[in-house]
Amino acid sequence: MSPGAVFILPIAGLPEIHAGENLGALLVQALMRTEIGAQPGDILVVTHKIVAKAEGALVDLRTVEPSSFALSFAAAWSKDPRQVEVVLRHTKRIVRMDHGVIISETQHGLICANAGVDQSNIEGEDVVCVLPDDPDRSAQQIAETVREMTGHELGVIVSDTFGRPWREGLTNVAIGVAGIRPLRDYIGMKDAQGRTLKVTALAIADELAGAAELVMGKLDRIPAAIIRGYQVESEAGSSRELLRKPELDMFR
Amino acid sequence: MSPGAVFILPIAGLPEIHAGENLGALLVQALMRTEIGAQPGDILVVTHKIVAKAEGALVDLRTVEPSSFALSFAAAWSKDPRQVEVVLRHTKRIVRMDHGVIISETQHGLICANAGVDQSNIEGEDVVCVLPDDPDRSAQQIAETVREMTGHELGVIVSDTFGRPWREGLTNVAIGVAGIRPLRDYIGMKDAQGRTLKVTALAIADELAGAAELVMGKLDRIPAAIIRGYQVESEAGSSRELLRKPELDMFR
Repeated sequence: MSPGAVFILPIAGLPEIHAGENLGALLVQALMRTEIGAQPGDILVVTHKIVAKAEGALVDLRTVEPSSFALSFAAAWSKDPRQVEVVLRHTKRIVRMDHGVIISETQHGLICANAGVDQSNIEGEDVVCVLPDDPDRSAQQIAETVREMTGHELGVIVSDTFGRPWREGLTNVAIGVAGIRPLRDYIGMKDAQGRTLKVTALAIADELAGAAELVMGKLDRIPAAIIRGYQVESEAGSSRELLRKPELDMFR
Repeated sequence: MSPGAVFILPIAGLPEIHAGENLGALLVQALMRTEIGAQPGDILVVTHKIVAKAEGALVDLRTVEPSSFALSFAAAWSKDPRQVEVVLRHTKRIVRMDHGVIISETQHGLICANAGVDQSNIEGEDVVCVLPDDPDRSAQQIAETVREMTGHELGVIVSDTFGRPWREGLTNVAIGVAGIRPLRDYIGMKDAQGRTLKVTALAIADELAGAAELVMGKLDRIPAAIIRGYQVESEAGSSRELLRKPELDMFR
Protein backbone atom coordinates (compact mmCIF):
# COMPACT_ATOMS: atom_id res chain seq x y z
CA MET A 1 0.00 0.00 0.00
CA SER A 2 2.72 2.40 1.00
CA PRO A 3 6.48 1.92 1.45
CA GLY A 4 7.37 1.37 5.07
CA ALA A 5 3.80 0.55 6.10
CA VAL A 6 3.24 -1.74 9.06
CA PHE A 7 0.19 -4.01 9.30
CA ILE A 8 -1.45 -5.21 12.49
CA LEU A 9 -3.42 -8.36 11.76
CA PRO A 10 -5.76 -9.89 14.34
CA ILE A 11 -5.65 -13.67 14.62
CA ALA A 12 -9.27 -14.73 14.88
CA GLY A 13 -10.71 -18.15 15.49
CA LEU A 14 -8.49 -19.46 18.25
CA PRO A 15 -10.34 -21.97 20.40
CA GLU A 16 -10.53 -21.67 24.19
CA ILE A 17 -7.09 -22.76 25.41
CA HIS A 18 -6.61 -25.45 28.06
CA ALA A 19 -3.65 -26.59 30.16
CA GLY A 20 -1.20 -28.78 28.29
CA GLU A 21 -2.25 -27.75 24.81
CA ASN A 22 0.37 -26.77 22.26
CA LEU A 23 -0.31 -23.05 21.95
CA GLY A 24 2.22 -22.51 19.16
CA ALA A 25 0.53 -25.15 17.02
CA LEU A 26 -2.93 -23.71 17.68
CA LEU A 27 -1.64 -20.27 16.68
CA VAL A 28 -0.15 -21.57 13.45
CA GLN A 29 -3.38 -23.41 12.62
CA ALA A 30 -5.38 -20.21 13.21
CA LEU A 31 -2.91 -18.24 11.04
CA MET A 32 -3.36 -20.73 8.22
CA ARG A 33 -7.16 -20.72 8.50
CA THR A 34 -7.31 -16.90 8.38
CA GLU A 35 -4.96 -16.79 5.39
CA ILE A 36 -2.65 -14.44 7.27
CA GLY A 37 -0.06 -17.19 7.28
CA ALA A 38 3.45 -16.52 8.54
CA GLN A 39 6.08 -14.53 6.68
CA PRO A 40 9.73 -13.91 7.47
CA GLY A 41 10.03 -10.84 9.68
CA ASP A 42 6.54 -11.18 11.14
CA ILE A 43 6.16 -10.55 14.83
CA LEU A 44 3.60 -12.63 16.70
CA VAL A 45 2.11 -10.96 19.77
CA VAL A 46 0.29 -13.26 22.20
CA THR A 47 -1.47 -12.21 25.39
CA HIS A 48 -0.09 -13.76 28.54
CA LYS A 49 -3.61 -14.94 29.32
CA ILE A 50 -3.61 -17.72 26.73
CA VAL A 51 0.02 -18.54 27.49
CA ALA A 52 -0.91 -18.93 31.16
CA LYS A 53 -3.90 -21.08 30.24
CA ALA A 54 -1.78 -23.37 28.04
CA GLU A 55 0.85 -23.63 30.77
CA GLY A 56 -1.74 -24.21 33.47
CA ALA A 57 -0.73 -21.02 35.31
CA LEU A 58 -4.12 -20.91 36.99
CA VAL A 59 -4.92 -21.04 40.67
CA ASP A 60 -8.13 -22.48 42.11
CA LEU A 61 -8.99 -20.08 44.92
CA ARG A 62 -10.77 -22.86 46.82
CA THR A 63 -7.32 -24.33 47.53
CA VAL A 64 -5.91 -21.07 48.93
CA GLU A 65 -5.71 -20.31 52.66
CA PRO A 66 -5.35 -16.54 53.12
CA SER A 67 -2.82 -15.25 55.64
CA SER A 68 -3.91 -12.73 58.26
CA PHE A 69 -2.17 -10.00 56.24
CA ALA A 70 -4.25 -10.92 53.18
CA LEU A 71 -7.41 -11.12 55.30
CA SER A 72 -6.97 -7.65 56.79
CA PHE A 73 -6.14 -5.97 53.45
CA ALA A 74 -9.04 -7.74 51.76
CA ALA A 75 -11.45 -6.73 54.51
CA ALA A 76 -10.37 -3.08 54.34
CA TRP A 77 -10.91 -2.89 50.57
CA SER A 78 -13.73 -5.41 49.97
CA LYS A 79 -11.50 -7.84 48.09
CA ASP A 80 -11.49 -11.61 47.95
CA PRO A 81 -8.85 -12.53 50.59
CA ARG A 82 -7.94 -15.69 48.66
CA GLN A 83 -7.11 -13.63 45.57
CA VAL A 84 -5.09 -11.18 47.70
CA GLU A 85 -3.19 -14.18 49.06
CA VAL A 86 -2.35 -15.33 45.52
CA VAL A 87 -1.11 -11.79 44.74
CA LEU A 88 1.12 -11.81 47.83
CA ARG A 89 2.52 -15.25 46.97
CA HIS A 90 3.54 -13.90 43.55
CA THR A 91 5.03 -10.71 44.96
CA LYS A 92 8.75 -10.43 45.72
CA ARG A 93 8.44 -6.83 46.99
CA ILE A 94 5.48 -4.51 47.53
CA VAL A 95 6.31 -1.23 45.81
CA ARG A 96 3.14 0.57 46.98
CA MET A 97 -0.01 -0.48 48.76
CA ASP A 98 -2.65 2.18 48.65
CA HIS A 99 -6.18 2.91 47.39
CA GLY A 100 -6.85 -0.83 47.59
CA VAL A 101 -4.17 -1.57 45.02
CA ILE A 102 -1.01 -3.56 45.54
CA ILE A 103 1.80 -2.55 43.20
CA SER A 104 4.04 -5.60 43.19
CA GLU A 105 7.48 -6.43 42.00
CA THR A 106 7.15 -9.98 40.74
CA GLN A 107 9.80 -12.68 40.78
CA HIS A 108 10.45 -11.74 37.12
CA GLY A 109 11.30 -8.16 38.16
CA LEU A 110 8.13 -6.80 36.56
CA ILE A 111 6.39 -4.03 38.49
CA CYS A 112 2.62 -4.07 38.06
CA ALA A 113 -0.68 -4.05 39.89
CA ASN A 114 -1.56 -7.20 41.83
CA ALA A 115 1.47 -9.14 40.55
CA GLY A 116 -0.37 -9.61 37.27
CA VAL A 117 -2.97 -11.87 38.92
CA ASP A 118 -6.38 -11.48 37.35
CA GLN A 119 -9.65 -13.14 36.68
CA SER A 120 -11.03 -11.72 33.44
CA ASN A 121 -11.64 -14.14 30.56
CA ILE A 122 -10.93 -17.12 32.79
CA GLU A 123 -13.38 -20.01 32.94
CA GLY A 124 -14.51 -20.94 36.43
CA GLU A 125 -15.87 -18.77 39.22
CA ASP A 126 -13.01 -19.41 41.63
CA VAL A 127 -10.07 -19.49 39.27
CA VAL A 128 -7.49 -16.76 38.72
CA CYS A 129 -4.67 -16.51 36.24
CA VAL A 130 -1.08 -15.78 37.25
CA LEU A 131 1.79 -14.68 35.03
CA PRO A 132 3.76 -17.41 33.21
CA ASP A 133 6.83 -18.60 35.15
CA ASP A 134 9.28 -17.49 32.48
CA PRO A 135 7.59 -15.46 29.70
CA ASP A 136 10.79 -15.38 27.59
CA ARG A 137 10.85 -19.15 27.63
CA SER A 138 7.14 -19.23 26.75
CA ALA A 139 7.84 -16.92 23.78
CA GLN A 140 10.79 -19.07 22.74
CA GLN A 141 8.70 -22.24 22.78
CA ILE A 142 6.07 -20.62 20.58
CA ALA A 143 8.77 -19.35 18.21
CA GLU A 144 10.24 -22.85 17.94
CA THR A 145 6.88 -24.43 17.16
CA VAL A 146 6.17 -21.76 14.54
CA ARG A 147 9.56 -22.41 12.95
CA GLU A 148 9.02 -26.16 12.88
CA MET A 149 5.56 -25.80 11.33
CA THR A 150 6.14 -22.92 8.88
CA GLY A 151 9.89 -22.79 8.32
CA HIS A 152 9.97 -19.12 9.36
CA GLU A 153 11.71 -17.47 12.30
CA LEU A 154 9.17 -15.10 13.78
CA GLY A 155 9.71 -12.67 16.60
CA VAL A 156 7.36 -13.51 19.45
CA ILE A 157 6.11 -11.19 22.21
CA VAL A 158 4.09 -12.30 25.23
CA SER A 159 2.08 -9.27 26.37
CA ASP A 160 0.10 -8.06 29.35
CA THR A 161 -1.78 -4.81 29.99
CA PHE A 162 -0.17 -2.78 32.76
CA GLY A 163 -1.06 0.52 34.36
CA ARG A 164 1.55 3.25 34.69
CA PRO A 165 2.24 5.99 37.21
CA TRP A 166 0.85 9.42 36.36
CA ARG A 167 -1.20 8.37 33.36
CA GLU A 168 -4.67 6.90 33.26
CA GLY A 169 -5.50 3.80 31.29
CA LEU A 170 -3.67 0.56 30.78
CA THR A 171 -1.37 -0.13 27.85
CA ASN A 172 -0.16 -3.44 26.52
CA VAL A 173 3.52 -4.14 27.19
CA ALA A 174 5.96 -6.96 26.45
CA ILE A 175 6.60 -9.28 29.40
CA GLY A 176 8.35 -11.94 27.31
CA VAL A 177 10.19 -11.86 23.98
CA ALA A 178 11.92 -14.26 21.63
CA GLY A 179 13.83 -13.59 18.41
CA ILE A 180 13.84 -9.80 18.75
CA ARG A 181 15.73 -7.25 20.78
CA PRO A 182 13.12 -5.35 22.81
CA LEU A 183 15.03 -2.06 22.72
CA ARG A 184 15.99 -0.17 19.57
CA ASP A 185 19.16 1.66 20.30
CA TYR A 186 20.22 5.06 19.00
CA ILE A 187 23.39 5.49 21.04
CA GLY A 188 25.98 7.32 18.98
CA MET A 189 23.66 7.80 16.00
CA LYS A 190 23.14 11.25 14.54
CA ASP A 191 19.98 13.25 13.90
CA ALA A 192 19.15 15.10 10.68
CA GLN A 193 21.39 17.96 11.80
CA GLY A 194 24.36 15.66 12.41
CA ARG A 195 24.02 16.02 16.18
CA THR A 196 24.59 12.86 18.18
CA LEU A 197 21.32 11.67 19.68
CA LYS A 198 21.23 11.56 23.46
CA VAL A 199 18.17 9.37 23.69
CA THR A 200 19.37 5.90 24.50
CA ALA A 201 16.69 3.57 23.25
CA LEU A 202 13.07 3.10 22.30
CA ALA A 203 11.12 0.27 23.90
CA ILE A 204 9.90 -1.13 20.61
CA ALA A 205 8.69 -4.40 22.13
CA ASP A 206 6.28 -2.40 24.28
CA GLU A 207 5.18 -0.32 21.29
CA LEU A 208 4.64 -3.51 19.27
CA ALA A 209 2.62 -5.01 22.14
CA GLY A 210 0.55 -1.81 22.37
CA ALA A 211 -0.01 -1.81 18.61
CA ALA A 212 -1.23 -5.41 18.77
CA GLU A 213 -3.70 -4.49 21.53
CA LEU A 214 -5.43 -2.18 19.04
CA VAL A 215 -6.77 -5.24 17.20
CA MET A 216 -7.28 -7.41 20.26
CA GLY A 217 -9.78 -5.73 22.52
CA LYS A 218 -10.70 -7.11 25.89
CA LEU A 219 -14.10 -8.26 24.72
CA ASP A 220 -13.41 -9.66 21.31
CA ARG A 221 -11.60 -12.85 22.19
CA ILE A 222 -8.70 -11.93 19.92
CA PRO A 223 -5.73 -12.93 22.07
CA ALA A 224 -3.05 -12.78 19.37
CA ALA A 225 -1.96 -10.68 16.42
CA ILE A 226 0.66 -10.61 13.70
CA ILE A 227 2.62 -7.43 13.05
CA ARG A 228 3.90 -7.43 9.49
CA GLY A 229 6.28 -5.01 7.79
CA TYR A 230 8.17 -3.80 10.82
CA GLN A 231 11.89 -3.95 10.23
CA VAL A 232 13.25 -5.51 13.37
CA GLU A 233 16.68 -6.83 14.14
CA SER A 234 16.05 -10.53 14.38
CA GLU A 235 18.35 -11.78 17.09
CA ALA A 236 18.35 -13.15 20.58
CA GLY A 237 16.78 -10.78 23.07
CA SER A 238 15.42 -10.94 26.58
CA SER A 239 12.56 -9.09 28.20
CA ARG A 240 14.99 -8.43 31.05
CA GLU A 241 16.49 -5.65 28.91
CA LEU A 242 13.24 -3.76 29.53
CA LEU A 243 13.63 -3.82 33.31
CA ARG A 244 15.34 -0.78 34.81
CA LYS A 245 18.12 -1.60 37.24
CA PRO A 246 17.13 -0.82 40.84
CA GLU A 247 20.06 1.57 41.28
CA LEU A 248 18.80 3.69 38.36
CA ASP A 249 15.15 3.53 39.38
CA MET A 250 13.83 6.77 40.88
CA PHE A 251 10.41 5.35 41.71
CA ARG A 252 11.17 2.27 43.80
CA MET B 1 -6.03 -8.11 3.63
CA SER B 2 -7.71 -9.39 6.78
CA PRO B 3 -10.89 -8.29 8.58
CA GLY B 4 -10.11 -6.00 11.48
CA ALA B 5 -6.57 -5.24 10.28
CA VAL B 6 -5.02 -1.92 11.22
CA PHE B 7 -2.49 -0.18 8.97
CA ILE B 8 0.25 2.17 10.09
CA LEU B 9 1.30 4.35 7.19
CA PRO B 10 4.35 6.61 7.39
CA ILE B 11 3.93 10.07 5.88
CA ALA B 12 7.12 10.68 3.95
CA GLY B 13 8.24 13.79 2.15
CA LEU B 14 7.36 16.50 4.65
CA PRO B 15 9.67 19.49 4.27
CA GLU B 16 11.60 20.96 7.22
CA ILE B 17 8.95 22.90 9.18
CA HIS B 18 9.38 26.56 10.15
CA ALA B 19 7.57 28.87 12.56
CA GLY B 20 4.30 30.23 11.21
CA GLU B 21 3.79 27.57 8.56
CA ASN B 22 0.45 25.82 8.26
CA LEU B 23 1.36 22.35 9.46
CA GLY B 24 -2.08 20.88 8.73
CA ALA B 25 -1.84 21.99 5.11
CA LEU B 26 1.68 20.61 4.73
CA LEU B 27 0.51 17.28 6.16
CA VAL B 28 -2.43 17.08 3.76
CA GLN B 29 -0.16 17.92 0.82
CA ALA B 30 2.25 15.16 1.86
CA LEU B 31 -0.65 12.71 2.25
CA MET B 32 -1.84 13.51 -1.27
CA ARG B 33 1.65 13.17 -2.77
CA THR B 34 2.20 9.76 -1.14
CA GLU B 35 -1.22 8.55 -2.31
CA ILE B 36 -2.14 7.64 1.25
CA GLY B 37 -4.76 10.36 1.15
CA ALA B 38 -7.20 10.80 4.00
CA GLN B 39 -10.13 8.50 4.69
CA PRO B 40 -12.94 8.76 7.23
CA GLY B 41 -11.86 7.14 10.49
CA ASP B 42 -8.15 7.71 9.86
CA ILE B 43 -6.07 8.85 12.80
CA LEU B 44 -3.22 11.23 12.10
CA VAL B 45 -0.32 11.02 14.55
CA VAL B 46 2.10 13.96 14.49
CA THR B 47 5.23 14.32 16.63
CA HIS B 48 5.25 17.32 18.94
CA LYS B 49 8.56 18.31 17.38
CA ILE B 50 7.07 19.53 14.12
CA VAL B 51 4.10 21.03 15.95
CA ALA B 52 6.51 22.99 18.13
CA LYS B 53 8.49 24.08 15.07
CA ALA B 54 5.36 25.31 13.29
CA GLU B 55 4.23 27.12 16.42
CA GLY B 56 7.66 28.59 17.06
CA ALA B 57 7.95 26.78 20.40
CA LEU B 58 11.72 27.06 20.22
CA VAL B 59 14.08 28.81 22.61
CA ASP B 60 17.39 30.37 21.59
CA LEU B 61 19.70 29.48 24.46
CA ARG B 62 21.80 32.60 23.82
CA THR B 63 18.89 34.63 25.22
CA VAL B 64 18.66 32.58 28.45
CA GLU B 65 20.25 33.68 31.72
CA PRO B 66 20.59 30.66 34.01
CA SER B 67 19.63 30.98 37.68
CA SER B 68 22.09 29.89 40.34
CA PHE B 69 19.96 26.74 40.87
CA ALA B 70 20.32 25.89 37.17
CA LEU B 71 24.05 26.66 37.28
CA SER B 72 24.75 24.36 40.22
CA PHE B 73 22.72 21.44 38.85
CA ALA B 74 24.31 21.86 35.42
CA ALA B 75 27.81 21.97 36.90
CA ALA B 76 27.21 18.82 38.97
CA TRP B 77 26.03 16.83 35.96
CA SER B 78 27.94 18.42 33.03
CA LYS B 79 24.83 19.92 31.47
CA ASP B 80 24.30 23.18 29.60
CA PRO B 81 23.03 25.53 32.36
CA ARG B 82 20.98 27.51 29.85
CA GLN B 83 19.11 24.35 28.82
CA VAL B 84 18.58 23.45 32.49
CA GLU B 85 17.14 26.93 32.98
CA VAL B 86 14.67 26.38 30.13
CA VAL B 87 13.66 23.07 31.74
CA LEU B 88 13.05 24.79 35.08
CA ARG B 89 11.00 27.55 33.46
CA HIS B 90 8.73 24.91 31.93
CA THR B 91 8.43 22.96 35.18
CA LYS B 92 5.53 23.49 37.56
CA ARG B 93 6.80 20.91 40.05
CA ILE B 94 9.92 18.77 40.23
CA VAL B 95 8.82 15.18 40.83
CA ARG B 96 12.35 13.77 41.13
CA MET B 97 15.82 15.17 40.60
CA ASP B 98 18.44 12.48 40.55
CA HIS B 99 21.07 10.81 38.35
CA GLY B 100 21.33 14.12 36.45
CA VAL B 101 17.71 13.87 35.36
CA ILE B 102 14.89 16.24 36.25
CA ILE B 103 11.48 14.58 36.20
CA SER B 104 9.13 17.54 35.77
CA GLU B 105 5.46 18.10 36.03
CA THR B 106 4.75 20.59 33.25
CA GLN B 107 2.09 23.27 33.21
CA HIS B 108 -0.01 20.81 31.15
CA GLY B 109 0.12 18.28 34.01
CA LEU B 110 2.39 15.97 32.00
CA ILE B 111 5.12 14.21 33.97
CA CYS B 112 8.26 13.60 31.94
CA ALA B 113 12.02 14.05 31.86
CA ASN B 114 13.29 17.62 31.47
CA ALA B 115 9.80 19.09 30.96
CA GLY B 116 9.91 17.74 27.40
CA VAL B 117 12.67 20.19 26.43
CA ASP B 118 15.04 18.70 23.89
CA GLN B 119 17.44 19.46 21.13
CA SER B 120 17.36 16.53 18.70
CA ASN B 121 16.31 17.22 15.11
CA ILE B 122 16.34 20.99 15.72
CA GLU B 123 18.24 23.30 13.39
CA GLY B 124 20.69 25.63 15.10
CA GLU B 125 23.41 24.85 17.62
CA ASP B 126 21.87 26.89 20.44
CA VAL B 127 18.18 26.17 19.94
CA VAL B 128 15.99 23.84 21.97
CA CYS B 129 12.41 22.80 21.46
CA VAL B 130 9.78 23.06 24.18
CA LEU B 131 6.37 21.40 24.30
CA PRO B 132 3.50 23.16 22.52
CA ASP B 133 1.51 25.47 24.82
CA ASP B 134 -1.72 23.53 24.38
CA PRO B 135 -1.24 20.28 22.47
CA ASP B 136 -5.01 19.59 22.34
CA ARG B 137 -5.50 22.94 20.62
CA SER B 138 -2.62 22.13 18.25
CA ALA B 139 -4.29 18.82 17.40
CA GLN B 140 -7.64 20.55 16.93
CA GLN B 141 -6.14 23.09 14.53
CA ILE B 142 -4.60 20.33 12.43
CA ALA B 143 -7.92 18.44 12.44
CA GLU B 144 -9.75 21.55 11.24
CA THR B 145 -7.32 22.17 8.40
CA VAL B 146 -7.55 18.53 7.35
CA ARG B 147 -11.36 18.74 7.37
CA GLU B 148 -11.35 21.93 5.30
CA MET B 149 -8.96 20.49 2.73
CA THR B 150 -10.21 16.90 2.48
CA GLY B 151 -13.77 16.96 3.80
CA HIS B 152 -12.92 14.25 6.35
CA GLU B 153 -12.96 14.38 10.14
CA LEU B 154 -9.74 12.69 11.23
CA GLY B 155 -8.68 11.95 14.74
CA VAL B 156 -5.42 13.74 15.47
CA ILE B 157 -2.80 12.85 18.09
CA VAL B 158 0.22 14.99 18.98
CA SER B 159 2.88 12.65 20.34
CA ASP B 160 6.11 12.73 22.29
CA THR B 161 8.46 9.97 23.46
CA PHE B 162 8.51 9.66 27.24
CA GLY B 163 10.41 7.43 29.60
CA ARG B 164 8.57 5.51 32.29
CA PRO B 165 9.40 4.35 35.80
CA TRP B 166 10.69 0.77 36.16
CA ARG B 167 11.02 0.05 32.46
CA GLU B 168 13.89 0.88 30.13
CA GLY B 169 13.35 2.59 26.80
CA LEU B 170 11.11 5.41 25.71
CA THR B 171 7.68 4.92 24.20
CA ASN B 172 5.61 7.34 22.18
CA VAL B 173 2.57 8.70 24.03
CA ALA B 174 -0.25 11.12 23.23
CA ILE B 175 0.22 14.59 24.68
CA GLY B 176 -2.58 16.15 22.63
CA VAL B 177 -5.69 14.75 20.97
CA ALA B 178 -8.57 15.96 18.83
CA GLY B 179 -11.62 14.09 17.56
CA ILE B 180 -11.01 10.94 19.59
CA ARG B 181 -11.49 9.86 23.16
CA PRO B 182 -8.05 8.85 24.43
CA LEU B 183 -9.38 6.15 26.77
CA ARG B 184 -11.43 3.16 25.69
CA ASP B 185 -13.68 2.26 28.50
CA TYR B 186 -14.80 -1.18 29.58
CA ILE B 187 -16.62 -0.25 32.76
CA GLY B 188 -19.62 -2.49 33.21
CA MET B 189 -18.87 -4.57 30.12
CA LYS B 190 -18.62 -8.33 30.40
CA ASP B 191 -15.87 -10.75 29.41
CA ALA B 192 -16.36 -13.98 27.44
CA GLN B 193 -17.48 -15.70 30.67
CA GLY B 194 -20.11 -13.05 31.37
CA ARG B 195 -18.10 -11.64 34.28
CA THR B 196 -18.10 -7.85 34.58
CA LEU B 197 -14.65 -6.52 33.69
CA LYS B 198 -12.91 -4.67 36.47
CA VAL B 199 -10.35 -3.01 34.25
CA THR B 200 -11.47 0.57 33.80
CA ALA B 201 -9.93 1.68 30.54
CA LEU B 202 -7.22 1.21 27.98
CA ALA B 203 -5.10 4.21 26.99
CA ILE B 204 -5.67 3.74 23.29
CA ALA B 205 -4.29 7.18 22.36
CA ASP B 206 -0.96 6.14 23.86
CA GLU B 207 -1.09 2.78 22.07
CA LEU B 208 -1.89 4.58 18.80
CA ALA B 209 1.01 6.98 19.37
CA GLY B 210 3.32 4.06 20.10
CA ALA B 211 2.13 2.21 17.00
CA ALA B 212 2.86 5.30 14.88
CA GLU B 213 6.38 5.49 16.30
CA LEU B 214 7.09 2.09 14.72
CA VAL B 215 7.08 3.75 11.28
CA MET B 216 8.65 7.02 12.36
CA GLY B 217 12.07 6.29 13.77
CA LYS B 218 14.22 8.97 15.28
CA LEU B 219 16.58 9.06 12.34
CA ASP B 220 14.29 8.74 9.37
CA ARG B 221 12.70 12.16 9.36
CA ILE B 222 9.22 10.65 9.36
CA PRO B 223 7.43 12.91 11.84
CA ALA B 224 3.85 11.82 11.07
CA ALA B 225 1.81 8.73 10.30
CA ILE B 226 -1.72 7.70 9.44
CA ILE B 227 -3.37 4.85 11.32
CA ARG B 228 -6.09 3.34 9.18
CA GLY B 229 -8.68 0.72 10.09
CA TYR B 230 -8.83 1.30 13.81
CA GLN B 231 -12.42 1.60 14.96
CA VAL B 232 -12.40 4.59 17.24
CA GLU B 233 -15.24 6.52 18.76
CA SER B 234 -15.03 9.80 16.93
CA GLU B 235 -15.99 12.41 19.44
CA ALA B 236 -14.60 15.24 21.45
CA GLY B 237 -11.79 14.17 23.73
CA SER B 238 -9.03 15.79 25.73
CA SER B 239 -5.54 14.58 26.54
CA ARG B 240 -6.36 15.62 30.10
CA GLU B 241 -8.31 12.38 30.45
CA LEU B 242 -4.94 10.61 30.34
CA LEU B 243 -3.58 12.47 33.37
CA ARG B 244 -4.06 10.74 36.70
CA LYS B 245 -5.54 12.90 39.42
CA PRO B 246 -2.94 13.78 42.07
CA GLU B 247 -5.06 12.26 44.85
CA LEU B 248 -5.01 8.89 43.05
CA ASP B 249 -1.33 9.04 42.11
CA MET B 250 0.90 6.77 44.19
CA PHE B 251 4.13 8.01 42.61
CA ARG B 252 4.01 11.77 43.07
